[in-house]
Amino acid sequence: MTLILSNEEISQLLSIEDVLDALEEVYKDLHAGRAVTRRRSDTLVPAHHDGEEAIYGFKTMDGVAPSQGFSAVRLNSDIVTWPVIEGSLRRVKIPAAPNNRWVGLVLLFSTKNGEPLAIMPDGVVQRMRVGATNGLGVKYMARENAKTVGILGSGWQAGTQLMATCAVRDIEMIKCFSPNPTNRLNFTQEMTETLGVEMMAVNSAKEAVSGVDIVLCATNSIEKVYVEGWLRPGVHVSSIKMPEIEEAALKKCDRVGLHFGQQRPDTVTATGLEPPDRRSGKGWDVNRTFNYDACPKLPQMIAGEVKGRKTDDEITCFINDMGLGLQFAVTAGVAYKKAIKAGVGHELPTDWFTENVHP
Amino acid sequence: MTLILSNEEISQLLSIEDVLDALEEVYKDLHAGRAVTRRRSDTLVPAHHDGEEAIYGFKTMDGVAPSQGFSAVRLNSDIVTWPVIEGSLRRVKIPAAPNNRWVGLVLLFSTKNGEPLAIMPDGVVQRMRVGATNGLGVKYMARENAKTVGILGSGWQAGTQLMATCAVRDIEMIKCFSPNPTNRLNFTQEMTETLGVEMMAVNSAKEAVSGVDIVLCATNSIEKVYVEGWLRPGVHVSSIKMPEIEEAALKKCDRVGLHFGQQRPDTVTATGLEPPDRRSGKGWDVNRTFNYDACPKLPQMIAGEVKGRKTDDEITCFINDMGLGLQFAVTAGVAYKKAIKAGVGHELPTDWFTENVHP
Repeated sequence: MTLILSNEEISQLLSIEDVLDALEEVYKDLHAGRAVTRRRSDTLVPAHHDGEEAIYGFKTMDGVAPSQGFSAVRLNSDIVTWPVIEGSLRRVKIPAAPNNRWVGLVLLFSTKNGEPLAIMPDGVVQRMRVGATNGLGVKYMARENAKTVGILGSGWQAGTQLMATCAVRDIEMIKCFSPNPTNRLNFTQEMTETLGVEMMAVNSAKEAVSGVDIVLCATNSIEKVYVEGWLRPGVHVSSIKMPEIEEAALKKCDRVGLHFGQQRPDTVTATGLEPPDRRSGKGWDVNRTFNYDACPKLPQMIAGEVKGRKTDDEITCFINDMGLGLQFAVTAGVAYKKAIKAGVGHELPTDWFTENVHP
Repeated sequence: MTLILSNEEISQLLSIEDVLDALEEVYKDLHAGRAVTRRRSDTLVPAHHDGEEAIYGFKTMDGVAPSQGFSAVRLNSDIVTWPVIEGSLRRVKIPAAPNNRWVGLVLLFSTKNGEPLAIMPDGVVQRMRVGATNGLGVKYMARENAKTVGILGSGWQAGTQLMATCAVRDIEMIKCFSPNPTNRLNFTQEMTETLGVEMMAVNSAKEAVSGVDIVLCATNSIEKVYVEGWLRPGVHVSSIKMPEIEEAALKKCDRVGLHFGQQRPDTVTATGLEPPDRRSGKGWDVNRTFNYDACPKLPQMIAGEVKGRKTDDEITCFINDMGLGLQFAVTAGVAYKKAIKAGVGHELPTDWFTENVHP
């Protein structure tokens, strides 16, 4: 049978510890060349949404983790707009599918016999793998005795960033800032309960990051949210996307670690089409005078080839520069194994997704 | 609702004329940069099958055809072996999934609102788009008055090659050779009925191609099956994959047309892994002293930028050098529209494949 899983089911099944453990193991495979991952690709054409200029983007990324027995493709079929919100250019995916929903899927396969094992939405898997990746950045780069966290952002990604950080360090206090006061208050209340850690909403980004051991940038901004002047000895600054940290701050760090160093997707666009964030030199094109080639990558640090931190005084930074298809093979694989064990999900005949003719 | 279609259903719904028409239209979009397609990628790791050395390959390709309102990813999850059969190195996909089945899928989406429209096996769609592509090669490169065909091959691809050729030219006689006498006889009988054209099985490749106006190579050989000495003025030679035609024959042609000129997939392999056909210099690496860059591409010929044939005496050749994700968006799109009209397929709730959380 091929399993159809929902975000609600996956959310019940997956713990951040599961994903941290599985990813850590497979990054060793990736470093050794036993696991493989295909750079994300974006195919873009002009579109319209409510009469406004938009882009239709079809995004895919694949990975194969033979040690886990899984391969996967993750795909997104998005209507994207670029409104200016509170003075900042934002990239906003419209939930344009029926019932105002987004379209992101992970298809999971067996590397043993090729069979389609599961189909699931990407939402929960996506935030778990981002959280766990930055969590591994914290594990290998932050001070062992780090106890305090400042987080910028209160959205969908921010929760798993905190969960992963608390799983790898003994965190005692968290400060949170995001531009909307209601959002940051709600998030703080919700996460205090989830994590069992003292957490407070504060009134500015500067206040949130001041005096803490670990800074987590977890925004959907395509402009900088953390600046050089805020860096102090011993801090670890973590970011879920390239533009969040000011370039001058990167240059001042003793060590900047990258996820895997791919940095950009392969992009194929209709003639003449240029997404607004690229047109304005934002998005993938920010912070381009910093030398990323010299940065250690997370799999190197996990494999022990490079030390993420040498002394307690060093300033370190981790940038989750771009996601990998491999993360979806691993994370969806863990969800699948737990779903089978728990008897969760819709079962469909595997024959619907296989064939008796040579493809 | 999201439709699940089977090969049997698609086979009933799709005619080669449908696919020829839709592809011809979208190749104009591709030429003009309105439609986009992402180069196929292969991610490969070592595997085993029945104790023998094998490779697990995860292959994906995407395309977006906004004029049709469709995007698609086509994927294959394959256990591949390289046995030597009748003295030739072959690339053989093992039907290793439950019930001895292969795994190839097309997922179809709407470019209007992103929604998942259909999931279907790739088998019938795959052979229809290959057939129609070479058929368009015949339409734009063979003599207008071509009446006779010699086909090499009697397998899964050979049938649609003949259907497409007969749809674009008034064919009166077909000769067929393939190494196994039973196969070529069965195929000849079956296709005579389907096409209503006189067809005969012959005892050698040379005999099949001798004196005909159009040669169709439709084999799964990764070595040459058509050689220079067989070329005669006015002939059009069509091939479904790079290695089928001897390089010297390519060089003797007045014009060699390519599908889109991509020629190779992006390949990501586990460290040290080299598929046997590459190791032996076959597969993608054959015929590499021929200058493919100078060849016209099918979309250029369809758009009228380059003439496929100038005189009846010219020797022309068309190589379907590599498939495109775009072909799957178009062909699966036609199948989907006809399935909706006919009320065919399993309907699943679209909510199963969409989400209410931001991906």
